[in-house]
Amino acid sequence: MTRVRLIIQYAGANYVGWQTQPNGVAVEEVIEKELFRLTGENITLHASGRTDSSVNARAQVAHFDTASRIPPGKFCYALNVSLPADIRIAYSDAPGECFHSRFDVVSKHYRYQVLLSPHLDPFYRDTALHIHHPIDVERMNEAASAILGTHDFLAFKAAGIELKDTVRTISRSQWHEAKASRNGETRLLYYDVAGSGFMYNMVRILVGTMLEIGGGKREAMDMHKALRSRERGLAGATAPAHGLTLYRVEYKNFDTEDYVL
Amino acid sequence: MTRVRLIIQYAGANYVGWQTQPNGVAVEEVIEKELFRLTGENITLHASGRTDSSVNARAQVAHFDTASRIPPGKFCYALNVSLPADIRIAYSDAPGECFHSRFDVVSKHYRYQVLLSPHLDPFYRDTALHIHHPIDVERMNEAASAILGTHDFLAFKAAGIELKDTVRTISRSQWHEAKASRNGETRLLYYDVAGSGFMYNMVRILVGTMLEIGGGKREAMDMHKALRSRERGLAGATAPAHGLTLYRVEYKNFDTEDYVL
Repeated sequence: MTRVRLIIQYAGANYVGWQTQPNGVAVEEVIEKELFRLTGENITLHASGRTDSSVNARAQVAHFDTASRIPPGKFCYALNVSLPADIRIAYSDAPGECFHSRFDVVSKHYRYQVLLSPHLDPFYRDTALHIHHPIDVERMNEAASAILGTHDFLAFKAAGIELKDTVRTISRSQWHEAKASRNGETRLLYYDVAGSGFMYNMVRILVGTMLEIGGGKREAMDMHKALRSRERGLAGATAPAHGLTLYRVEYKNFDTEDYVL
Repeated sequence: MTRVRLIIQYAGANYVGWQTQPNGVAVEEVIEKELFRLTGENITLHASGRTDSSVNARAQVAHFDTASRIPPGKFCYALNVSLPADIRIAYSDAPGECFHSRFDVVSKHYRYQVLLSPHLDPFYRDTALHIHHPIDVERMNEAASAILGTHDFLAFKAAGIELKDTVRTISRSQWHEAKASRNGETRLLYYDVAGSGFMYNMVRILVGTMLEIGGGKREAMDMHKALRSRERGLAGATAPAHGLTLYRVEYKNFDTEDYVL
């Protein structure tokens, strides 16, 4: 058996998320079906983590084991021949049989895009949250810096998820303005967050809380307060999924950043 | 009657182009249907120019006349309520009854995106031409500069189009690299061209010729030679539509650049 590693990019709009679900088509399922076609094997993909319905992936990593003689570096070409255009394998290789897509993650990086504009821009309809009201980016950055370092993120854990360890280390947490129209009325913002790992919905709850702070519904200090309280009730609402992109996954000797745009 | 001006943005993938056609849904038709719903009038839109099937518009301009009492500045909001998410009105106003979207154009600006990559990137599937083979951007820029100024573009006129005046003035013609993956194997290029006006398919034939030059099938000098020859046979193939975006339209006192991202 050979272990094969894939970098997978997908536009999430047409899928129920990474993981196979009863209520629609999952990204995982689409790729596993093509792997069956190529190898005749019932292959299970192991990803760096799940992504929800409508969440995008600029760089997801997954591995699988196969007895196929297809050279590991050629799986990307073989799969892309028949995958739909909103799912693409950007790279494939043989990382060795000890590599694990999830357990070996050193750092994950998410990006959340927000379009501040009177009208939706059609080119960002599936990758940015559209907001009409003004937002104070400085306040959001004040809030964003509160989560840097190692903290118990219990307040940002989705309700109903059982999880013993809610401590995570965040190495990057910052809002940026990507671009703006000349009249200043339309602005594309993005939030970059990187860390050792994230709980289910954690990034979306962090963003939801910061958007409430940026919109004036909360104080910048509320981020710090929610974190310290360890109470989900003190954090904000979960931000919509389609603004979120799994942006980069880093391993000890492997970084998706080398391979994607 | 009031003349109303619109800035329209659309992702072209799902449409047969701007103009109503028997074989599918046109952008013009979708907006006119919503205008009928709002005003009860059979309104005809007059655009700055047509765009082909799959061509995108970051900023198209169109005007129409109406007896409706909807304030001109509110048409964008009223239309966006029911337009599909891949068509959006970014702005509306009353330019005065002498304004004409097509005849008053001072400068139009197109952008053509090319993704040089072993594998398609799903986020550029509808807005960039995907090319596998290497391309020499310096050679393409040498060729691009040959069309600056006022020339007879007969060689870049689509076959079968009747047109008396084939002289156009080009003020900008340049290739840029937008970004690249760290390993250098994936690069996003774009070509910016601006001028007094463009003939049907002219930008796509210019790009097709330059891509043949960049790929080594032609010499950089061939751009100049084709231009001088005034023979369509000496120019290259027409580049695919989906890489093309109508980027900006300028009038004497109005510039779409102020309003879009």
